[in-house]
Amino acid sequence: MPSWLKNYRRSDLPHDLVASLTLLVLLIPQGLAYALLAGLPPQAGLYASIVPVLVYALLGSSATLSVGPAALPSLMTATALAGMALPGGGDYIALAALVALLSGLLRLLLGLLRFGFVANFLSQSVVGGFVSGSAMLIVLSQLPQLFGVTAHGSTAWEIGGKLLAALPDTNRSSLSLSLAALFLLFAGKRWSKPLLYKIGLSEQRADLLAKAFPIVVVALGGAAVALLDLPVRVVGQLPAGLPPLAMPTLSLAGLPALLPAVLAIALVGFVDSFSIAQSLALKRRESVDPDRELLALGLANTAAGLTGGFPVSASFGRSAANELAGARSQLAGVLAAAWIALVLVACTGLFASLPLAVLSATIVMAVSQMMDLSILRLAWRYDRRDVAVYLATWLGVLLLGVVDAILLGVGMSLALFIWRTSQPHMAVLGRVAGTEHYRNILRYEAETDPKVLAVRVDESLYFANIRFVRSRLVGLLSTRPQTRSLLLVLSAVNAIDVSALQGLRELNRGLREQGVQLHLAVVKGPVMDLLKQSGFLEELSGAVHLSTHAAMQALKTIAMEVPDYAI
Amino acid sequence: MPSWLKNYRRSDLPHDLVASLTLLVLLIPQGLAYALLAGLPPQAGLYASIVPVLVYALLGSSATLSVGPAALPSLMTATALAGMALPGGGDYIALAALVALLSGLLRLLLGLLRFGFVANFLSQSVVGGFVSGSAMLIVLSQLPQLFGVTAHGSTAWEIGGKLLAALPDTNRSSLSLSLAALFLLFAGKRWSKPLLYKIGLSEQRADLLAKAFPIVVVALGGAAVALLDLPVRVVGQLPAGLPPLAMPTLSLAGLPALLPAVLAIALVGFVDSFSIAQSLALKRRESVDPDRELLALGLANTAAGLTGGFPVSASFGRSAANELAGARSQLAGVLAAAWIALVLVACTGLFASLPLAVLSATIVMAVSQMMDLSILRLAWRYDRRDVAVYLATWLGVLLLGVVDAILLGVGMSLALFIWRTSQPHMAVLGRVAGTEHYRNILRYEAETDPKVLAVRVDESLYFANIRFVRSRLVGLLSTRPQTRSLLLVLSAVNAIDVSALQGLRELNRGLREQGVQLHLAVVKGPVMDLLKQSGFLEELSGAVHLSTHAAMQALKTIAMEVPDYAI
Repeated sequence: MPSWLKNYRRSDLPHDLVASLTLLVLLIPQGLAYALLAGLPPQAGLYASIVPVLVYALLGSSATLSVGPAALPSLMTATALAGMALPGGGDYIALAALVALLSGLLRLLLGLLRFGFVANFLSQSVVGGFVSGSAMLIVLSQLPQLFGVTAHGSTAWEIGGKLLAALPDTNRSSLSLSLAALFLLFAGKRWSKPLLYKIGLSEQRADLLAKAFPIVVVALGGAAVALLDLPVRVVGQLPAGLPPLAMPTLSLAGLPALLPAVLAIALVGFVDSFSIAQSLALKRRESVDPDRELLALGLANTAAGLTGGFPVSASFGRSAANELAGARSQLAGVLAAAWIALVLVACTGLFASLPLAVLSATIVMAVSQMMDLSILRLAWRYDRRDVAVYLATWLGVLLLGVVDAILLGVGMSLALFIWRTSQPHMAVLGRVAGTEHYRNILRYEAETDPKVLAVRVDESLYFANIRFVRSRLVGLLSTRPQTRSLLLVLSAVNAIDVSALQGLRELNRGLREQGVQLHLAVVKGPVMDLLKQSGFLEELSGAVHLSTHAAMQALKTIAMEVPDYAI
Repeated sequence: MPSWLKNYRRSDLPHDLVASLTLLVLLIPQGLAYALLAGLPPQAGLYASIVPVLVYALLGSSATLSVGPAALPSLMTATALAGMALPGGGDYIALAALVALLSGLLRLLLGLLRFGFVANFLSQSVVGGFVSGSAMLIVLSQLPQLFGVTAHGSTAWEIGGKLLAALPDTNRSSLSLSLAALFLLFAGKRWSKPLLYKIGLSEQRADLLAKAFPIVVVALGGAAVALLDLPVRVVGQLPAGLPPLAMPTLSLAGLPALLPAVLAIALVGFVDSFSIAQSLALKRRESVDPDRELLALGLANTAAGLTGGFPVSASFGRSAANELAGARSQLAGVLAAAWIALVLVACTGLFASLPLAVLSATIVMAVSQMMDLSILRLAWRYDRRDVAVYLATWLGVLLLGVVDAILLGVGMSLALFIWRTSQPHMAVLGRVAGTEHYRNILRYEAETDPKVLAVRVDESLYFANIRFVRSRLVGLLSTRPQTRSLLLVLSAVNAIDVSALQGLRELNRGLREQGVQLHLAVVKGPVMDLLKQSGFLEELSGAVHLSTHAAMQALKTIAMEVPDYAI
């Protein structure tokens, strides 16, 4: 039994009840719309709003996270299956369920192996570029529906090309409905909250009602179609009854083609959900556990795969509305799932005349909020290389596909990191007059000793930078022929790997042959332990000093013993 | 005109002359043998010892490096072309020349773009494992020749399988010759130097004559075949005359299949040659320039491709012998090239009865010295993860092929580096009583302040570790509920990327909501510049302090103002 249920206070019930109704009015249009985005029949979205929600409620660590149909996994499912089966057909439905099942099992496995950390390799720039690119791709994928034509595909080129070809067949009724819906949604988002506030509602209620506005627009669309008998595509009669329970058939031959998408859905879904859970938890001073979230999302998706659904994830908008509506625990989600089940059993007929164009308009409005440029602005001010990663991932989503875009982004960010660490900053140190402080002589007025060259290396030493460091040191020495001692200040060296150790040994040997001693200073504990163990300290021509100042004092004494010091 | 020629002193001539003759007696058996290892007719090895040697002599930066036929590029050529053409045939010869030409042009390009640094990504463990694995693969590839049978292939499985199948056809004369040659070579290596020293030669001469011993064994083998008329495979009559000048035909269709091998040969050849040049230069207190070496090796290989040769590289054994023989400049190499040309014009008949089995025996002896386990021993003592990289690369060479082995090794070593930096060491700091020093409370007796949590992060902050760092910090805070200030000591943080900055911003915001201030101390110059630029310092709830001690003093004062300090 989950802890929220064990400690449930009766006084929380009315709050959770209100929140559950809020979730219901959001889940219905979103479930129908995201199912269509994924290329599935509308009821799949309602199916995905029942058992997965219950599973997350029982296992998840967040009190108010709303798991269920969401934009990113729906898009990723659509692009993964594009070309593998006909959208909406039986094979397609089975494949979508299989993707949910596999991505769930994979998350389960990663969670059990405590591999939650793999998500760390998606940098903010990659995630930002990916989400913005996906939002654009989703908007693009909804355009055919808004125009009342058909055009499927997995990249911007493909969808755009087919859309252009289909434009002459635009359905004017669809387009009019779409434009009207978009206008209403936009106006509602902009003006409904202040208006409701003005007519006397509390700010919170006004906000909540404004958030529930899409269902009003969808209902208006349905009424318009029914009353005016408009010739547009509608949801149609949904099969009544609870979600089917079925094991998706697993074809080993098709597996390799699905795996990259399954991995991408598992990782992106996890990173996305976990970030949302983290930001909700931060507000409530709670903590969420990545490995437990992996397990909960994994089982929720496994459940989605077994009950006629498709990949589910947390929705930021729904979670925020849930919180705003006063949800105290996951009971809100459990109740919402119950309402959806009731709707499926009793009144599927309500949806028959809802126009697809209006559902698409709600998707377009929802995802246009996903385009968050704040990280791009920050990167522009802070480090342009991250701008490149952001843009590459963004363009990658549009032009290459979602999986390749992630690989591209992760590869670029890792390469940038390696590139930066392979050419570390190095500073020649001098003594700040009258103090025991030693600083970069390029940044400070500092005195140097011609016999002693003190250099600080601002990076751990490892195979990819040791040759660079050695040749910089040799270069510095060649311009200072009087040098008798080279002092390496290792205050910023957090590790030295075997290749770097070997490089230091060769440097030590080479310097000894030139009559130059190699000294070390400010060696960190863990590095010192390893150096001792390796036997390098016995080979070292100089000594290890506790501080730069101690080293300089000791070396000055040595230097003074050399007769030609007066030069 | 190269600088050594401009400043040539007449007194150096006798030394270079002696060295050139030493090179000659080494180049003849090595040239023939490595050509056979590469799957080429023997004369290709002599061709590759003329123009490429001249080119390197004119352009290279090392005075005594001997460039020409070498074990690694010959093996890599053989494995690259296995299955593409019949070894020894016309297509095969043309492909080998093409590989030399392309690997030369690629090095030239990398040198012009100053891309010498790419070689840095081959760690000592990768190079060590690669060389040891290649040495084993070379020995294995020579076994068929030693048994007088035929078995080609590019992996250990392939060669081993074919060899086993061919063993019933063992040529007893070949096997006897091989065993005799191996015994003589081994005995010569072991005992000839002490023996020559005993009979009165200087140590240097004894060493030199011992090094030239292989040509004696080869000559004895030739004499045995000629006198006893043994039924074994021999070098045969070589075409007399200088190397042909021909442009290898470039087939665009075949290019993609060759490119990975060309890249691997270019990189490995460069790393190998440059390491040898560096170690020779260190002894002579000279310096070698990586980009100039890339250019020189690039043109030498281009020349090899245009004059009937195959990929060339520096040979450590030959370079060391050259040095030992007293070489003062690249004139030794130039003269050796002239002697080889003379031999090709005047006395190719000398080689007709040299048995291939004996040439193979000289290869086996030579490469068995390449198996250097010192880096493996060092890694065993120092960091077992590098042992894994070494062994994986080694096994990769034997089982996957040389190109995949390098990719595997480089991939593994980069992954290990990223893995390590993604889980940085973090230390809670306390004050060493009576001092202004703050140290890890787990390593030192140190006092902490319950209101201030001081943590040092021993790694640059970037996307792959910021979530780890944040959750460690949140974990530390949750066990210290009295904490009012979190002090991050950034002395070991050399960089903070955009994702990490964003993580710090979120941490700052989250802590502020919990009533905890975030302070920074010992921020490095370049990091401080960027933090200022980003606007983060204005958001920061706490302050930036110059030292840990200054921070602790300032925060103590703040903490004392809080009434419940006495707890």
